[in-house]
Amino acid sequence: MTSITCKAAVAWGPGEALVIEDVVLDPPNPLEIRIKVVCTSLCRSDITQWESKAIALFPRIFGHEASGLFIKKLHTRMHARRRDFISIKLCGIISQGKEGKNIQGIGSYGYVSLQILHHFGYAKIVESIGEGVTEFEKGDHVLTLFTGECMTCKHCSSGKSNMCQVLGLERKGVMHSDQKTRFSFKGKPVYHYCAVSSFSEYTVVHSGCAVKINSNAPLEKICLLSCGVAAGLGAAWNVANISKGSTVVIFGLGTVGLSVAQGAKLRGAARIIGVDTNAEKYDKGKSFGVTEFINPDDCNEPVQQVIKRITDGGADYSFECIGDTDMVTTALQSCCDGWGVTVTLGVPKTKPEITAHYGLLLSGKTLKGSLFGGWKPKSEIPLLVDMYQRKEIQIDEFVTHDLSFMDINKAFELMRAGKCLRCVIHMPN
Amino acid sequence: MTSITCKAAVAWGPGEALVIEDVVLDPPNPLEIRIKVVCTSLCRSDITQWESKAIALFPRIFGHEASGLFIKKLHTRMHARRRDFISIKLCGIISQGKEGKNIQGIGSYGYVSLQILHHFGYAKIVESIGEGVTEFEKGDHVLTLFTGECMTCKHCSSGKSNMCQVLGLERKGVMHSDQKTRFSFKGKPVYHYCAVSSFSEYTVVHSGCAVKINSNAPLEKICLLSCGVAAGLGAAWNVANISKGSTVVIFGLGTVGLSVAQGAKLRGAARIIGVDTNAEKYDKGKSFGVTEFINPDDCNEPVQQVIKRITDGGADYSFECIGDTDMVTTALQSCCDGWGVTVTLGVPKTKPEITAHYGLLLSGKTLKGSLFGGWKPKSEIPLLVDMYQRKEIQIDEFVTHDLSFMDINKAFELMRAGKCLRCVIHMPN
Ligand SMILES: [Zn+2]
Ligand SMILES: [Zn+2]
Ligand SMILES: [Zn+2]
Ligand SMILES: [Zn+2]
Repeated sequence: MTSITCKAAVAWGPGEALVIEDVVLDPPNPLEIRIKVVCTSLCRSDITQWESKAIALFPRIFGHEASGLFIKKLHTRMHARRRDFISIKLCGIISQGKEGKNIQGIGSYGYVSLQILHHFGYAKIVESIGEGVTEFEKGDHVLTLFTGECMTCKHCSSGKSNMCQVLGLERKGVMHSDQKTRFSFKGKPVYHYCAVSSFSEYTVVHSGCAVKINSNAPLEKICLLSCGVAAGLGAAWNVANISKGSTVVIFGLGTVGLSVAQGAKLRGAARIIGVDTNAEKYDKGKSFGVTEFINPDDCNEPVQQVIKRITDGGADYSFECIGDTDMVTTALQSCCDGWGVTVTLGVPKTKPEITAHYGLLLSGKTLKGSLFGGWKPKSEIPLLVDMYQRKEIQIDEFVTHDLSFMDINKAFELMRAGKCLRCVIHMPN
Repeated sequence: MTSITCKAAVAWGPGEALVIEDVVLDPPNPLEIRIKVVCTSLCRSDITQWESKAIALFPRIFGHEASGLFIKKLHTRMHARRRDFISIKLCGIISQGKEGKNIQGIGSYGYVSLQILHHFGYAKIVESIGEGVTEFEKGDHVLTLFTGECMTCKHCSSGKSNMCQVLGLERKGVMHSDQKTRFSFKGKPVYHYCAVSSFSEYTVVHSGCAVKINSNAPLEKICLLSCGVAAGLGAAWNVANISKGSTVVIFGLGTVGLSVAQGAKLRGAARIIGVDTNAEKYDKGKSFGVTEFINPDDCNEPVQQVIKRITDGGADYSFECIGDTDMVTTALQSCCDGWGVTVTLGVPKTKPEITAHYGLLLSGKTLKGSLFGGWKPKSEIPLLVDMYQRKEIQIDEFVTHDLSFMDINKAFELMRAGKCLRCVIHMPN
């Protein structure tokens, strides 16, 4: 097994336009897999991190909302003898031994995985499944997971948390297992993002950071379940647990906020109030279930006062989907005493501290948050894909732009300008 | 019906020693009752408000944790002809009409009440029950409620809130119905506290701010269920909903904190960690179920780090019972990702703003609060009295001092110095 060279969109500095470069991608470490990215969408937090001068891990490959395949076919730039190449859809590569030798890769987390010894020169691809491997089978389609699920740690086995202690949100731009990068450019490391880095033709992820999904599902749509859409639905269902007939207020009608709206609608919320300074979002909002709109810029009084008035004391649930900690306070003020629940979803661009007068809590309100809508990613995301295929949830309407990989900077521009919901980037075949 | 003169402990200015004065207490307004206070205990929030220069409502009568009777016997200083006096335990006085006339007092909130026309001079006490009155009967013992329950507003009828919109926490030192005081001294109003003002031989409360309790229960003990002990138990049971086998950390081992401990123990918590800088509280703590103690002053690192280490990532539940908003942050940091719940109970003496890094919530924690432990006071407090009588909950151990009304300032001194749990003040017979 060896490294491959592929094209990736490399960020060389904070806020600098990405450059499509030929990067070298190492073979996967034990328990990791190398996948071919099929579609990846751009999420707000890619932008936030890319713009951030505080966390300056550059060069870096962003992207964490993606669909892909275990290496479907080996990249043409690889040094394989083409005649020996066996094209497979799924190619979970677990290798520690010598070339030509089939190694047992028994997942130390109890569920991994397809094991393929893959060496070049003779390009003999051997496929076998280690003891206890049940998760992946040849031909699986996958979604990448920016927060993984090892299935065995205290949190994964608790049944009440998705904060995996082994494969949780990776912040240092490296892989979980060895704190190193798999990407390099001219011999120098290129940092990962969330241990996914999907803005690349190929990437290496931990096998616990990818989930098998129904292969009939369109990868160019369901990639949105890899982050934003699932996060919003989960906030509505898992975190707030919205009840029928309730009143919901959503601050920020981006993909996450509109996904909350969709979740609220499906739970039978009676009123779904969308708050956004961009009135262009209202039409889209309606299609996702928003029943009323408030533009804070049009109000003569603080928006929380407007909401309290029109809802007779406050909403049952409020959601902060902007990424503004001051709006968390506003959201808390907008929900009712006694049983009001405020869910914070956004990752703030500036002030990371939430402030709230103690009286807001003393009056019986609850403030909570979650990562990825509380979904246990490997266990539950496939269910959302199934729901989509049964037309129980909408995803297509979030895709406002389809762009080729070469146009990835356009996606960044559109999102920075607030002119898109999701730009889906299609990787070269 | 007329005013009575009785002795009350009047606070004339912030932090000034109370003075026992002869105050005039008006007859109750419609739906109100005049009660004889039997026992009242001193709670931290009495001290906080008494010391506060920000909310300077003086002269004022404090006290909100009390047991009493509907006027058991008319006060000896009243101008009644003693031979006509009928001693009754319960004397809910609802009067708007002329003396000597029996008035129908149909409770507009649907449940009130005994209706007694009571006039002096001839001291004829007429007792009758208005249409729809089911709540009070002659001879009832009562606990006062610093937050009432009207039974019919949106919150009372929701089944999920104790934040009554009609009889909620009164902050202006007056009665709910007319924004006036019932107490006066030399013709000038004397402010109430929480519309209870139990540091007086007699007081007037709204009939929705008193609850009938089992008349066999010792009033000198169960008065603690009127605030502190119930608040702590409710925080553990209603708000946090502590589960069996869990780990609980409690900041501040006063009456409220120890009541949380008791609640946690009764729920089968495996570890109950008490945090307090006063090691003298540890013995008492053990008797209420605290299994481990941490004195932050003895730690070489922040207490939240100690807690995270000894609990493998944080407690399942943490409770802030000190009244320090900075400790709310510490409590949030001390509970675990994924499912950790922090409950804030304290009323802060200084900084009213709680601050928390958004990441604490993003990792799946919940921050919540409640008034009076989430108890619906009229509906649920009698159940706690019953539990006490069945010896299912401890109360006696909280009473560290029994004092006569004349020694009320000693109670203030003891609490300010942190040298008591509850001082029970016994009113003159
Ligand atoms: Zn995202
Ligand atoms: Zn795990
Ligand atoms: Zn109190
Ligand atoms: Zn009410």
